[in-house]
Amino acid sequence: MTHSIQLLGISNAIVDVLAHVDQEFLDTIGAPLGSMTLIDEVQARDIYSKMGPATEMSGGSVANTIAGFANLGGSSAYIGKVRDDQLGDIFNHDMTSLGIDIRLEPATVGPATARSHVLISEDGQRTMQTYLGACLGLGLLDITETTVGAPKALLLEGYVWDIGEGPALAKQAAKIARANGTAVALSLSDSYCVERHRDAFNDFVKADANIVVADEDEIHALLGTDSMPAAIKELSTFDILFAVTRSEKGSVIVHGDTVVEQAAEKVDHVIDSTGAGDAYAAGFFYGWANDHSLSDCAQYGTHCATQVIQQVGARVEKGLLDDYQTG
Amino acid sequence: MTHSIQLLGISNAIVDVLAHVDQEFLDTIGAPLGSMTLIDEVQARDIYSKMGPATEMSGGSVANTIAGFANLGGSSAYIGKVRDDQLGDIFNHDMTSLGIDIRLEPATVGPATARSHVLISEDGQRTMQTYLGACLGLGLLDITETTVGAPKALLLEGYVWDIGEGPALAKQAAKIARANGTAVALSLSDSYCVERHRDAFNDFVKADANIVVADEDEIHALLGTDSMPAAIKELSTFDILFAVTRSEKGSVIVHGDTVVEQAAEKVDHVIDSTGAGDAYAAGFFYGWANDHSLSDCAQYGTHCATQVIQQVGARVEKGLLDDYQTG
Repeated sequence: MTHSIQLLGISNAIVDVLAHVDQEFLDTIGAPLGSMTLIDEVQARDIYSKMGPATEMSGGSVANTIAGFANLGGSSAYIGKVRDDQLGDIFNHDMTSLGIDIRLEPATVGPATARSHVLISEDGQRTMQTYLGACLGLGLLDITETTVGAPKALLLEGYVWDIGEGPALAKQAAKIARANGTAVALSLSDSYCVERHRDAFNDFVKADANIVVADEDEIHALLGTDSMPAAIKELSTFDILFAVTRSEKGSVIVHGDTVVEQAAEKVDHVIDSTGAGDAYAAGFFYGWANDHSLSDCAQYGTHCATQVIQQVGARVEKGLLDDYQTG
Repeated sequence: MTHSIQLLGISNAIVDVLAHVDQEFLDTIGAPLGSMTLIDEVQARDIYSKMGPATEMSGGSVANTIAGFANLGGSSAYIGKVRDDQLGDIFNHDMTSLGIDIRLEPATVGPATARSHVLISEDGQRTMQTYLGACLGLGLLDITETTVGAPKALLLEGYVWDIGEGPALAKQAAKIARANGTAVALSLSDSYCVERHRDAFNDFVKADANIVVADEDEIHALLGTDSMPAAIKELSTFDILFAVTRSEKGSVIVHGDTVVEQAAEKVDHVIDSTGAGDAYAAGFFYGWANDHSLSDCAQYGTHCATQVIQQVGARVEKGLLDDYQTG
């Protein structure tokens, strides 16, 4: 079967509002370092009014992966909901300009385009306060044979389960995927998200997923494990391709009895650590979609993550893997 | 006379939309490298659709100076016109969060908040395509005893002359300033802007200005000179404080017979050259407003410009001059 689109993302469409903060600021707003907290519109106005000058850029976890995947040269499409406002224009422009096929029109009613207040600490860690806005309107009506089509893989993010019809639309997307020979992939988003939806994620992984990308904490949160050897043993019992990132310890890919370990690249100075997992996924899926070995997939993922943590901004730059003569 | 506000800016309130481009892109859109071109809404949509993914941040020449001045610890206020849209919110937030007193409410009708498509070349030069939008609505009604108040100095930018009531509102601001013991300063914006408004600028400088900040090209465009010695001879005939930046040649301050030359600081790698003049002005006015020597003013300006050209983004960072124990 041929797929004109290699990777379709379904996720929360978010514009990041980035500012550097100190620990005192995080203490004042009561946000644990490195956490992602969902906030409402009133809280969003409050946090924004307390923040210093910011920079705006398109974000969102799986949206970053899709953008990176497109920048590497992959063909991709995207389903996510913005409002017809200036931030929605920015989000859709940034995706479209990479050649990504945007499958939904902006909403003409309802809340504003989502924004995540990204508070960057001196050590490069991000603490996020996210107002989901228009994302909350993503629903079953948006997930159809037409909008999903028949990509080689579709990639959902765990954060989709935070929206009202999220669990139902994820099931519906997986059903359409199965009928079209599309692989179903899930990115676990963050360990707090896994805590919120552990049972639903375990059900979805067992019933629907062919590929899962996650970091070590998320995998432990999902499985209830507390060491990598224990997790690998458990993961090997599934017929699912798992790619698990481990920060400075590199990554591990597990598929049944196959275990591929990849070391991290040396980095002198981390500028902005988050986005690493999304960038890893971009490289990993680029290798996977082009039928490269799992070892190559791990190497591409690692190289993309290494680039992203050395810049402000979570998206993999154009042509990053050209030296590898992939494609 | 005491002034609770040291520096009031009156200028075009603009959000920058920054993207990296190559020379081919500039050729395609017919933009000379390093130029600033005014475009209408249709052209703005066209250029944006051709640009790659972008980053948004508050900009504007004198707005950058005011933001930098506030970050250095100065007390400041700002008059500029945005629309009540998301980009307008971003602009006002970024200024307000630095403690700058925003004197106008956003417009509730009319065109959208201004945006400048900032095309950054590989060598760090900026080419700008600017849609003035809501800025065009800045007018005489906005310049009153109440909005101007009695700052120690008010700073206009040459770009104000690009808007319909700009020349008239500049005269009105100068008149209010004179009555309150406020110094009138003018930043010449860019040499193309000086070409557009040479006669008006010469009239304004002679009749109204106490301080002029400019780069070498702008001064030559204003005076019709072609060497620094010739320009300095001419500038010394005015009773006006001139601060002239000269890129890697440093800067020259001229006030009658007083001439202060300042060398540039050594820079290994220029990331993004524009904003240097605005940053210089921030440091210069910080020294001036605190009654430091002209030599100190030049040194502060140079230090601010040096920081800004080594980052993407045109605004001076918080506390940059703290080491100088100014204030």
